[in-house]
Amino acid sequence: MKMYFTPGPSQVHSNYEKDMKKAIKLHIPSISHRSKLFMEIMKGVEGGLRKLLSIPLSHHIFCISSSLESMERILSNVVKKKSFHFVSGSFGEAFAAASAAQGLKCDVHHLLPGERIPTDTFFLPSDTELICITQNETANGSCVPLEDIYRLKEKYPNIPVAVDIVSSAPYPDLDFTKIDCTFFSVQKGFGLPSGLSILIVCDKLVRTSTKKGYHDFPSLLSKSLKNQTPETPNVLNIFLLGEVLKAMNEKGIRKIRKETEEKAQMIETLGNLSVTDPTTRSKTVLVINTFGKTKEMKEKLEKKGIIIGSGYGDKKKIQVRIANFPQHSIDDVKRLLLYCRKYFAKRAH
Amino acid sequence: MKMYFTPGPSQVHSNYEKDMKKAIKLHIPSISHRSKLFMEIMKGVEGGLRKLLSIPLSHHIFCISSSLESMERILSNVVKKKSFHFVSGSFGEAFAAASAAQGLKCDVHHLLPGERIPTDTFFLPSDTELICITQNETANGSCVPLEDIYRLKEKYPNIPVAVDIVSSAPYPDLDFTKIDCTFFSVQKGFGLPSGLSILIVCDKLVRTSTKKGYHDFPSLLSKSLKNQTPETPNVLNIFLLGEVLKAMNEKGIRKIRKETEEKAQMIETLGNLSVTDPTTRSKTVLVINTFGKTKEMKEKLEKKGIIIGSGYGDKKKIQVRIANFPQHSIDDVKRLLLYCRKYFAKRAH
Repeated sequence: MKMYFTPGPSQVHSNYEKDMKKAIKLHIPSISHRSKLFMEIMKGVEGGLRKLLSIPLSHHIFCISSSLESMERILSNVVKKKSFHFVSGSFGEAFAAASAAQGLKCDVHHLLPGERIPTDTFFLPSDTELICITQNETANGSCVPLEDIYRLKEKYPNIPVAVDIVSSAPYPDLDFTKIDCTFFSVQKGFGLPSGLSILIVCDKLVRTSTKKGYHDFPSLLSKSLKNQTPETPNVLNIFLLGEVLKAMNEKGIRKIRKETEEKAQMIETLGNLSVTDPTTRSKTVLVINTFGKTKEMKEKLEKKGIIIGSGYGDKKKIQVRIANFPQHSIDDVKRLLLYCRKYFAKRAH
Repeated sequence: MKMYFTPGPSQVHSNYEKDMKKAIKLHIPSISHRSKLFMEIMKGVEGGLRKLLSIPLSHHIFCISSSLESMERILSNVVKKKSFHFVSGSFGEAFAAASAAQGLKCDVHHLLPGERIPTDTFFLPSDTELICITQNETANGSCVPLEDIYRLKEKYPNIPVAVDIVSSAPYPDLDFTKIDCTFFSVQKGFGLPSGLSILIVCDKLVRTSTKKGYHDFPSLLSKSLKNQTPETPNVLNIFLLGEVLKAMNEKGIRKIRKETEEKAQMIETLGNLSVTDPTTRSKTVLVINTFGKTKEMKEKLEKKGIIIGSGYGDKKKIQVRIANFPQHSIDDVKRLLLYCRKYFAKRAH
């Protein structure tokens, strides 16, 4: 059996085969997206997400096809002229690029991977309509501490904040009173096939949008109030997400988060961590310097059935990325470490 | 076992369970969308589609998340000010609404369900940038004969034509020298779960687009040349589509089309067809008047394991819609007719 520690798509949830069999038995791929059964499934997904992530009723939950689409829709529904982006890596750049692609102006504050947002000394341009933050940067394993996001919001309470938690959800314990929208993809921390992004938006941003497309906030809300989606969505993945959420809520989010921290600590013992500050080091995507040995390491681990991610972009050959998602059990991590240690430990400081 | 004759989502392809097992065995939900394996799968899908639908190299093939998205992207990439729509039902209206939602002007020529486009006497406004045609209207079971589309193109060779074949593909034998773009969804005539639309666009429309978003034509092309997609796509469905295409190409498109016509003729013997002109009656979605008996009929058929579609919109209670897709075998249709006959036949003319 192979075990994927890749940063997404990644290992599937341990119930995946069982849930897929249930989907086939219930004819989920054939049911209408306007049927009672679908609406019950949607309602279950919404309830499951609200419970797991403590999402208050002030925020709506929408199904989107990918997180790149979530970025695009947030920008087009919220920003008329100018967005502001904190960018510490490739996925922050993608968020800024989504703004530029729409002909919007975007100001960028670059952060080195692992650098804190200087919330005290930092001042936003006065015409900023939206602050975009990549809370977890999949490309380099850095993260923005939630307290930095909250401090920004305290400083600028009237400017909406959009937070990319694509590769950290459900780990971050977000306070939704301080977040206007956020989004993630199910092929990362939810152990599902790709093709579904969950977009969570506060009511005010939905009400102030004047956009009229099928995936603009008002259309999304009008269907979501009926537990439906504007288009025929990825019904199968929505069903599977509902099943994963049941299992996660049964286990409990506290335990999931505690285990995430425990497993991160275990992986950190490998040393050579790309981000050295523990407050800005991601718990869910750990990036390790390999000194050019990435290809060799990946190949040797693959022979043991363990798949890890290469470095991203220009770090492809000199880093590896190891995902630490809820579907990776403590025993899975022990097995990973067993085979990793001989490559990493001897190079440790 | 249930059998879905609904107009989509519909019955899955007979190999569906086998293909899904293969996907699980190959860890398809976990593979990277930048991996060699994914690129091979994408290449297979492209090759399979080109063979099945005789798509020439002048046209590119893109993966989109839904056909509503395909409509939106076509309009935003092709039209600067004004589109023209032939509308004979709700999905034609959706195409026109997608134009209006973008703030574009759209002229509409309404057709009664089953009415031909008056190609000889009809004249387009001179500022038309795109002609949009719903070749198969899922809402009412009418279709636009391909010869009408071709005649329009002969009359206006310089105006691009976009053809919605969402619920008829792979049946229409399109001549791509006369079509600029077309699209369909896999949950209809390809017997797959929903969450994937295939968009086919001629090279000229890609080259003339100046749009820069992740799902705009230039970005889609730049990734598709590498057998990739801009976002993490619905990898599982792309894999399953590749498998379905292998089976379809093995059977041969001629046989698939011939059987579609045979099965349509069989279903037509039920009488009370909503569209009476055989040249504009869809072969893939047959709509039958029920004289208010829709609910009773659907319930009685459901007890026999046969699911058919209600009428659409205000026809919900007075029509039924029966899909005739490649995954419905001649024996399936015989079984459908056996149970339908007692409700429909006695009301036949």
